Amino acid sequence: MRVIVQKYGGSSVADLECMLKVRENVLKALDKGYRVVVVLSAIYGETDRLLSFARSWSKRPDSSELDVILSTGEQISVALFAMLLKDCGVKARSFLGFQIPIQTDRSFGKARILDIEHEHIRHMLKDYDVLVVAGFQGCDTENRITTLGRGGSDTSAVALAAVLDAELCEIYTDVQGVYTTDPNICSQARKLNKIAYDEMLEMASMGAKVLQIRSVEFAKKYNVPVHVRSTFSDNSGTYVVQEDKSMEAAMVSGIAYDKDQARITLVDVVDAPGTAAAIFEPIARANIVVDMIVQNPSREGGRTDMTFTVPKSSIEDSLNILKKVKDKIGARELLHDANVAKVTVIGVGMRNHSGVAAIAFSALKKENINIMIISTSEIKISCLIEEKYTELAVRTLHEAFGLGDQDVGLRKEEESPAITDQ
Amino acid sequence: MRVIVQKYGGSSVADLECMLKVRENVLKALDKGYRVVVVLSAIYGETDRLLSFARSWSKRPDSSELDVILSTGEQISVALFAMLLKDCGVKARSFLGFQIPIQTDRSFGKARILDIEHEHIRHMLKDYDVLVVAGFQGCDTENRITTLGRGGSDTSAVALAAVLDAELCEIYTDVQGVYTTDPNICSQARKLNKIAYDEMLEMASMGAKVLQIRSVEFAKKYNVPVHVRSTFSDNSGTYVVQEDKSMEAAMVSGIAYDKDQARITLVDVVDAPGTAAAIFEPIARANIVVDMIVQNPSREGGRTDMTFTVPKSSIEDSLNILKKVKDKIGARELLHDANVAKVTVIGVGMRNHSGVAAIAFSALKKENINIMIISTSEIKISCLIEEKYTELAVRTLHEAFGLGDQDVGLRKEEESPAITDQ
Repeated sequence: MRVIVQKYGGSSVADLECMLKVRENVLKALDKGYRVVVVLSAIYGETDRLLSFARSWSKRPDSSELDVILSTGEQISVALFAMLLKDCGVKARSFLGFQIPIQTDRSFGKARILDIEHEHIRHMLKDYDVLVVAGFQGCDTENRITTLGRGGSDTSAVALAAVLDAELCEIYTDVQGVYTTDPNICSQARKLNKIAYDEMLEMASMGAKVLQIRSVEFAKKYNVPVHVRSTFSDNSGTYVVQEDKSMEAAMVSGIAYDKDQARITLVDVVDAPGTAAAIFEPIARANIVVDMIVQNPSREGGRTDMTFTVPKSSIEDSLNILKKVKDKIGARELLHDANVAKVTVIGVGMRNHSGVAAIAFSALKKENINIMIISTSEIKISCLIEEKYTELAVRTLHEAFGLGDQDVGLRKEEESPAITDQ
Repeated sequence: MRVIVQKYGGSSVADLECMLKVRENVLKALDKGYRVVVVLSAIYGETDRLLSFARSWSKRPDSSELDVILSTGEQISVALFAMLLKDCGVKARSFLGFQIPIQTDRSFGKARILDIEHEHIRHMLKDYDVLVVAGFQGCDTENRITTLGRGGSDTSAVALAAVLDAELCEIYTDVQGVYTTDPNICSQARKLNKIAYDEMLEMASMGAKVLQIRSVEFAKKYNVPVHVRSTFSDNSGTYVVQEDKSMEAAMVSGIAYDKDQARITLVDVVDAPGTAAAIFEPIARANIVVDMIVQNPSREGGRTDMTFTVPKSSIEDSLNILKKVKDKIGARELLHDANVAKVTVIGVGMRNHSGVAAIAFSALKKENINIMIISTSEIKISCLIEEKYTELAVRTLHEAFGLGDQDVGLRKEEESPAITDQ
């Protein structure tokens, strides 16, 4: 049995017309001999509507009850779509999270998938040609409804593809695929035909919101080939797959950016083993995510400055915590700056190429963009800069690595996997 | 553990203000030492909105998928209400049909409750002070969502009260209780303090839409005391309970009517054993409900007329079927009349009183209202009349049996069960 998983986001199921287009796609896959698992989001705007409705009743809606409400969005879209399939004679049925079941932990509002009971769903694939599964939702061990957080339907789709050994997980969306950078700020941005899981993780976490980050982690872990493509065009999109030789040939595959950064500095602290712990433990306890951290080389007298970034929304909470810490560790000053942004150069090819950092730094320098913090990994270089330079920095780096150029370093159309032909 | 079940209909949960009033009611019951099971309908108008939405997508929405959609109405109201309870510190939790579970057959759209897993819900009553249960919904043995039909929340409530051995099942609604007849057409109509299950069954099935008929069957079968009352007043409503002596003292307890009747006559058929079967078997196969049936005494030559009633909505289907039957059984004519209505005199006291029929017939005759069909049971007399006389007939019968009169035959306030004081 050949299985394909197709996930459609909210804009792909916005109204009857859109859903009829989705039905055409599904019928095509049936014609090719696939059993199809369709994963749907809520109708466009419905989740926001439900959320603000709940908030009009309760200032801080209980998270477990909120999940009961939010899950109705997908519940309605899957039933509607199953109806449309049955209307044209397809053996189809809707499935809610608890009916599969998609077992999650009990972190309401941001639950993680623990397990999918695959025998049951495999059995259902014998009875039905199409299973229409509600994305974004699951249930905990007590059968309570949970939701997976924004973009959670991507993760539902990839997880189902993993347990079903699907040939492909198609993520249908309103863009053509994954781009070298944000086309809204860089007209040279170009669609990638292929991207490695690790690159996609960086792209996703850096604010390129095509795929929920957890879905990419899942895809990587279970080696699920993912195809991000447009619902409203037959063009091939971007394959998110395991790294291969052709990828390493390219130094850099994309430029991401993230404006949701704020910088905090504790000036003149003792450079001793306990200092970092004294700062970051209370921050972690408050569930504040620290991203970049830099500690200056120790000055005379063994003192240093500690600088790091947090999301802009966490700046007040962070400062409240650190005011107490400041006195305790004897820091001279507590500084902060919310007008910062992070630009990131990404590419698995970096591992084999030297000089990527040098190209990035000199390109930014040429535009007089000051780099406040640098953080690197095997496949990325991130620079914290003044927020107002974000767009300029992205365009500059995109240009410097020749990303807009069809024949420089990047994967060509012919190199997309054989699976495109199916 | 003292348990009370409270059911609130759509108009009682129409908006935040209404739900806050409901919360007050629930808090009062908690103060009295009860554990409370609250059964809610969808927010007023929501079920109709969902139904017409589904119909705008599919002309004949698949009934199993339609139930998935319709059940979201109650899903949202229970989560909202559980939120409100938690907001004021009450240990509460929402429960959907599948979470109890309320097991039903698989007649989507009009499912019947087969079983309620009571150990689980009893256990939950130890953990929570209030269980907020979605009415109107259940699940079949395959965990698919089913709905119980219009008014199904009443049945959910009574069934839960039965399995939990609740002291009382309170049905909160937008009227003060059960009336001797429809107050909209008879200003003399008076609220009943007490009514027997069997009387209520007749009242419900005759179009007095206070309680879903199946909920009364359930209440009777498991001897659940039901109290129908207003959400927005502290006055006692109507107790629906087992028949007792005080009830038998009254001859008649109410007058019901039903305008959804159409009359069909097959003229001049052979009065032989096979005739009725030839007529009613194909009608039953088409799921058309036949109510009153009358066969005239056989004329010379062994021929007779067969007259019966069906719901107005079934008249066309019935005629299509009977056109074929007519030739087969050699009937001379097939007549029909949709301008008819049924008025019914109800009372368990009838059993012990003669002359009820005589009073009814002479009252109608005095107003020159012709009776087309009569059908009787131990506790009721129904007359089919011209539809235009419905209101007049109801008022006339109401008057003839002295139902508007406080001290004639009917139960007085003091006679309501001891349970009112709790």
